[in-house]
Amino acid sequence: MPYVNIKITREGVTPEKKAELIRGATQLLVDVLGKNPATTMVIIDEVDTDNWGVGGESVTARRKQGK
Amino acid sequence: MPYVNIKITREGVTPEKKAELIRGATQLLVDVLGKNPATTMVIIDEVDTDNWGVGGESVTARRKQGK
Amino acid sequence: MPYVNIKITREGVTPEKKAELIRGATQLLVDVLGKNPATTMVIIDEVDTDNWGVGGESVTARRKQGK
Amino acid sequence: MPYVNIKITREGVTPEKKAELIRGATQLLVDVLGKNPATTMVIIDEVDTDNWGVGGESVTARRKQGK
Amino acid sequence: MPYVNIKITREGVTPEKKAELIRGATQLLVDVLGKNPATTMVIIDEVDTDNWGVGGESVTARRKQGK
Amino acid sequence: MPYVNIKITREGVTPEKKAELIRGATQLLVDVLGKNPATTMVIIDEVDTDNWGVGGESVTARRKQGK
Repeated sequence: MPYVNIKITREGVTPEKKAELIRGATQLLVDVLGKNPATTMVIIDEVDTDNWGVGGESVTARRKQGK
Repeated sequence: MPYVNIKITREGVTPEKKAELIRGATQLLVDVLGKNPATTMVIIDEVDTDNWGVGGESVTARRKQGK
Repeated sequence: MPYVNIKITREGVTPEKKAELIRGATQLLVDVLGKNPATTMVIIDEVDTDNWGVGGESVTARRKQGK
Repeated sequence: MPYVNIKITREGVTPEKKAELIRGATQLLVDVLGKNPATTMVIIDEVDTDNWGVGGESVTARRKQGK
Repeated sequence: MPYVNIKITREGVTPEKKAELIRGATQLLVDVLGKNPATTMVIIDEVDTDNWGVGGESVTARRKQGK
Repeated sequence: MPYVNIKITREGVTPEKKAELIRGATQLLVDVLGKNPATTMVIIDEVDTDNWGVGGESVTARRKQGK
C-alpha cells in the first residue's frame, strides 16, 4: 500500500500526462518491490512557479533569465 | 502540538464539512493522547481527481468506470 | 480514498494508542464525508522533540522550561 | 540539497514576499548547515482559511471572532 | 526540478532496491514530462507497520490476520 | 500560524544546529509576513542518505563519487 507524491510546477500538464505519471509510479512499486497496485496511491501536486524556489530564487525568476 | 494533514479529492466539500473534519481530528488527538487542542493544527488538501491515482489510474478514470 | 498524516512528538506512544488514532481518523472520514474505510490510509510520523519547534524553540527546550 | 516546505494561509501574499521567503529559507540552510544553495528547493503552499484549523476551528471562523 | 516522495512500510528494503526506486522515479519524470534528472529529487520514507493504517487498522494487525 | 518542514540528510546535525534552524525559520516568517512566532511550527526531518536521491542516484552513491 505505498504512497507516492509527485510535485511539479504548474505549467499546463495534460490529464493524459498525469495519467502516465500515475501509471508509471504505480508500476515502479510493482516492479521494484512487488507491491499491490490496487492499494498504491499517487498524488500529483502542481505548484505555481512563484511558489517554487531553487538556488534562492523562484522558478518564475529563473525562467525569465533563461535558466 | 500535533499536526494533522487530511487529503481528499476536490469534489465540492462544504466549509461546514471541513469544519467538522477540523473539529473531529483535533478532538481525536485530545481523546487518545491528551494533546492540547489550542496548539493542534489541521490542514485539509483538496486534490483534483485527475491528480489522484489508485490502482494505476486516476480517480477521474475510475469514476467514469463506476469504480 | 482519503489520506491522513498525523505528526506527533516521539514520546513513547504505544501501538495500542496508535491503533486508536488510525481507527479514529478513518472513522472521521466515514462519518463526515461517507468515505470508504477500506481505502483510507493513515500514516503517523513520530518526530524527535529536538526536531519539532514552536515559538522559535525546540520542544526539548520548551519541556525543560515547563512549557 | 535540502528541501523546505512553507505552508501559509492564502491571503494575498505577493510574488515579492514569496521571493523573500525563498531567498531567506535558502540562506538559512547555507548559514546554519553550509548547504549548497544551488540544490536547495523551497516550496510554498498557500492554504485556504477554510482548510486550515487551529484550536479545533477553521482560521475563517477564528478571523470572524477577531482571533 | 520535480520532487518525488515515496512512502513504503519499513520492512527491510535494501539500499539496492532504494537505488532502483530513485532511478525509476527520476526516469519517469524525464520520460513523461522531459524534466531534467539533475534537479529531480526523490525522498523515500520508511514507515513502521504500527504507524501505517489501512481499513481502520494498522498494517501490523493486518499482517497478523494474513491480509 | 505557519508550518515549516525542513528536510535534510541525516548526517549528525547537532541539537544546537537544529535549534538555529527552528529559530531562523520562525524569524523568517515574522520578518517577511508578520506572522505570530508563538503559533509557528517547524518540523525537521532527517533522511538517510540511502533514501535521498538526486540526479537519479542516492546521496550515498554521490558522496562515494565525491559529488
